[in-house]
Amino acid sequence: MAPLSKRLGAEFLGTFWLVFAGCGSAVLAATAITDSDFPVGIGYLGVALAFGLAVTTMAYAVGAVSGGHFNPAVTLGLAVAGRFAWKDVLPYWCIQIVAGLVGGGVLYAIASGSDSFDVAANGFAANGYGAHSPHGYSMAAGFICELVMTAIFLIVILGSTDSRAPKGFAPLAIGSTLTLILLVSIPVTNASVNPARSIAVAFEAGNGALGQLWLFIVAPLLGAAIAGFSYAFLLGKDPEQNA
Amino acid sequence: MAPLSKRLGAEFLGTFWLVFAGCGSAVLAATAITDSDFPVGIGYLGVALAFGLAVTTMAYAVGAVSGGHFNPAVTLGLAVAGRFAWKDVLPYWCIQIVAGLVGGGVLYAIASGSDSFDVAANGFAANGYGAHSPHGYSMAAGFICELVMTAIFLIVILGSTDSRAPKGFAPLAIGSTLTLILLVSIPVTNASVNPARSIAVAFEAGNGALGQLWLFIVAPLLGAAIAGFSYAFLLGKDPEQNA
Amino acid sequence: MAPLSKRLGAEFLGTFWLVFAGCGSAVLAATAITDSDFPVGIGYLGVALAFGLAVTTMAYAVGAVSGGHFNPAVTLGLAVAGRFAWKDVLPYWCIQIVAGLVGGGVLYAIASGSDSFDVAANGFAANGYGAHSPHGYSMAAGFICELVMTAIFLIVILGSTDSRAPKGFAPLAIGSTLTLILLVSIPVTNASVNPARSIAVAFEAGNGALGQLWLFIVAPLLGAAIAGFSYAFLLGKDPEQNA
Amino acid sequence: MAPLSKRLGAEFLGTFWLVFAGCGSAVLAATAITDSDFPVGIGYLGVALAFGLAVTTMAYAVGAVSGGHFNPAVTLGLAVAGRFAWKDVLPYWCIQIVAGLVGGGVLYAIASGSDSFDVAANGFAANGYGAHSPHGYSMAAGFICELVMTAIFLIVILGSTDSRAPKGFAPLAIGSTLTLILLVSIPVTNASVNPARSIAVAFEAGNGALGQLWLFIVAPLLGAAIAGFSYAFLLGKDPEQNA
Repeated sequence: MAPLSKRLGAEFLGTFWLVFAGCGSAVLAATAITDSDFPVGIGYLGVALAFGLAVTTMAYAVGAVSGGHFNPAVTLGLAVAGRFAWKDVLPYWCIQIVAGLVGGGVLYAIASGSDSFDVAANGFAANGYGAHSPHGYSMAAGFICELVMTAIFLIVILGSTDSRAPKGFAPLAIGSTLTLILLVSIPVTNASVNPARSIAVAFEAGNGALGQLWLFIVAPLLGAAIAGFSYAFLLGKDPEQNA
Repeated sequence: MAPLSKRLGAEFLGTFWLVFAGCGSAVLAATAITDSDFPVGIGYLGVALAFGLAVTTMAYAVGAVSGGHFNPAVTLGLAVAGRFAWKDVLPYWCIQIVAGLVGGGVLYAIASGSDSFDVAANGFAANGYGAHSPHGYSMAAGFICELVMTAIFLIVILGSTDSRAPKGFAPLAIGSTLTLILLVSIPVTNASVNPARSIAVAFEAGNGALGQLWLFIVAPLLGAAIAGFSYAFLLGKDPEQNA
Repeated sequence: MAPLSKRLGAEFLGTFWLVFAGCGSAVLAATAITDSDFPVGIGYLGVALAFGLAVTTMAYAVGAVSGGHFNPAVTLGLAVAGRFAWKDVLPYWCIQIVAGLVGGGVLYAIASGSDSFDVAANGFAANGYGAHSPHGYSMAAGFICELVMTAIFLIVILGSTDSRAPKGFAPLAIGSTLTLILLVSIPVTNASVNPARSIAVAFEAGNGALGQLWLFIVAPLLGAAIAGFSYAFLLGKDPEQNA
Repeated sequence: MAPLSKRLGAEFLGTFWLVFAGCGSAVLAATAITDSDFPVGIGYLGVALAFGLAVTTMAYAVGAVSGGHFNPAVTLGLAVAGRFAWKDVLPYWCIQIVAGLVGGGVLYAIASGSDSFDVAANGFAANGYGAHSPHGYSMAAGFICELVMTAIFLIVILGSTDSRAPKGFAPLAIGSTLTLILLVSIPVTNASVNPARSIAVAFEAGNGALGQLWLFIVAPLLGAAIAGFSYAFLLGKDPEQNA
């Protein structure tokens, strides 16, 4: 295993990229139109692909160094499942949150470079429920959605990195799962399943995002923990996992 | 081979995910527009990707445990082709149908969390023909389409898991085939090729979906059986298949 | 190597699928709108993905049996490059053309099942230039485009199946190349690079498609032959190729 | 390693394809509409996919011959990181620039084949900032965006070709990274991260593109060099790298 400093370097790069490119696609490109009113913007489909590709690409690039979590909920779920050392959870969480904030900051610097950028109107890719949900979904709907989605996310992560699964395809499967999560849940909560991603843009976004941040910390962590507990029961323990 | 209980756990997760995320993308995200009327919704292309990614991701995650069917027609076709034990067909069918219904129920709970959700207007991703076809295709057109599509689906499943095919790529090939099936057949029948997926949403959908459910059970099962019978004749038997 | 009968079975399935699903996505789903005028249709992007996925999926499923050509120009280019036996070219061409015609026929049967289907207005995914080009490109532009695109297609096919390339990824690379070819050339000629695909729909399409068919036979075959001749000169001969 | 002449052949094909197909998708297909006003054009999402697929497909086809750079900034970053011989940098740069210009020229020949093509209105996929940015982003925003994006691009290239990463997936990871870069940065600068791509279309584009070309040479080269220097520090040196 790589030294902790290199592993934190890898987590920094991955989480920075997830927030910068994932949220960046939403902030800069989702609803662009040409002068002749053609809707060239990438819509929810493009944003969903962007988040998934951020994970897939960095997991191939640096996953061998750090495990490629890029997400505090993933780190927790892997620890609960016995696949990650509890003593490394806190350092991973810290660097993920810092990297997310840096990613959000660089994105803000670029976005501000256009006269037509208005952070309040844009929303800056913040997560929300109720009045701050993209299409008015309630707090309960948002909580269920984030919890179930993060649980499934962890099942795919645990399953595709299990020794029984085909080798080398886990980054593809995991990033594709994030794309699919967003294809369903952008309208509900703007799609988090990742506390570091939610924290990263809440400060810039204003507009109530900070007051709703608790849900996007609690629900993903809870969903991930449930999946970590349930994996071996539902699917059998990875035959090559220690102890 | 994993014990039946773990294999049923895997089929539950996969079929739940296929219905929850596949139908969820259609119900929640297909036609979303912003306040300024930009069509951010994912359209038929996004829904087609969602169903395919659901299969690809879960096949990488749990396919090594259960085979990754997530579909009663797939289970039947594999049994007909001699790749799956007949005695396990019924348990697989039962858990697939239950998992689909649970997926449809969770989706309904989330969808109902928005005041603007109207299940009748939305259609809840139900399959249909004639008056209930998305673009008015007849019963005969729907039957041919579902039969041919499911037959090709099984050919790809049998071929990409054949010992002659490259190792590890079958989940990608199979999920991509489902995406392609939907790219063509959403306008015709809203695309089933999977009785568990059709059953899962027919009860919530109302609007005649239950009365047309027979077609989305009969045509996929028939297409899968034909493909199972024809595979060895057309392409030669998998050299490593027993007996 | 599989017996010729099984290889022709594989080519039939692949070419049928390419025409049925590729052209099917264009004919049935490209420009669909909902009752409330949301553009759910898959557009040129969805059609481009459909053609590419048709090749990728069938190449994983049956490529190990027949080589996965599904296209007379590919068969010719491989023969010119010394990778395919000249004596099998004619049987491959015949089954590819027959399979394409069957695919076009089944598609026509389904499309006709909707009262709103009008084959003349729809165009039935026929290829064309000049007045029959989707956006008015001249015969010369169409010829250059088809020739260059088919040449690059063959370069990717020869290169990704070369013994120096990573194993197992060729179907992905080849199908993705077809997607990319369509992303560029649908506006020019409706994108052929495959005489069997052009022949398959020209009879149903009417509207001058038959009179322009020569270009979509000559330009792809010429481009493929040029690539077959140039490959070893530009990139070096595959070290494991015989003779 | 292949002789330099074959490696330059490979770089020619790859860079030609990147410019011809990537820029071609933007020039020919981005904003197409049907006679009945359906927006069939592929938008920023389709263009982003096109550039990424160009790299993925050619990296699978010819990457084993030349390394698959197709981009002067990539060549520089690999040299800085000690993965590429400094003496080959200049020949690679020359052939990449020539190939890009040829790709731009063939594209211009095809585009001119439609009476409705107006190169000034179209923009010919040129990169720009300020008044020439697609959505009015400043020079500073453009510079930061190009620098950061190219740096991350090199991190993924170095990481996914590191001996610690899964074998065979690098072309997929690298092309997907380019797609993601475009999903974010098309609105800002029309997305370069590649001096050869920017040079290739600046002459045809007119409209100030030549006067802004310096940024799309300096920022990508600087970003690539920074990433080349930082890789080993952040992530640890590739254990199999020499000296």
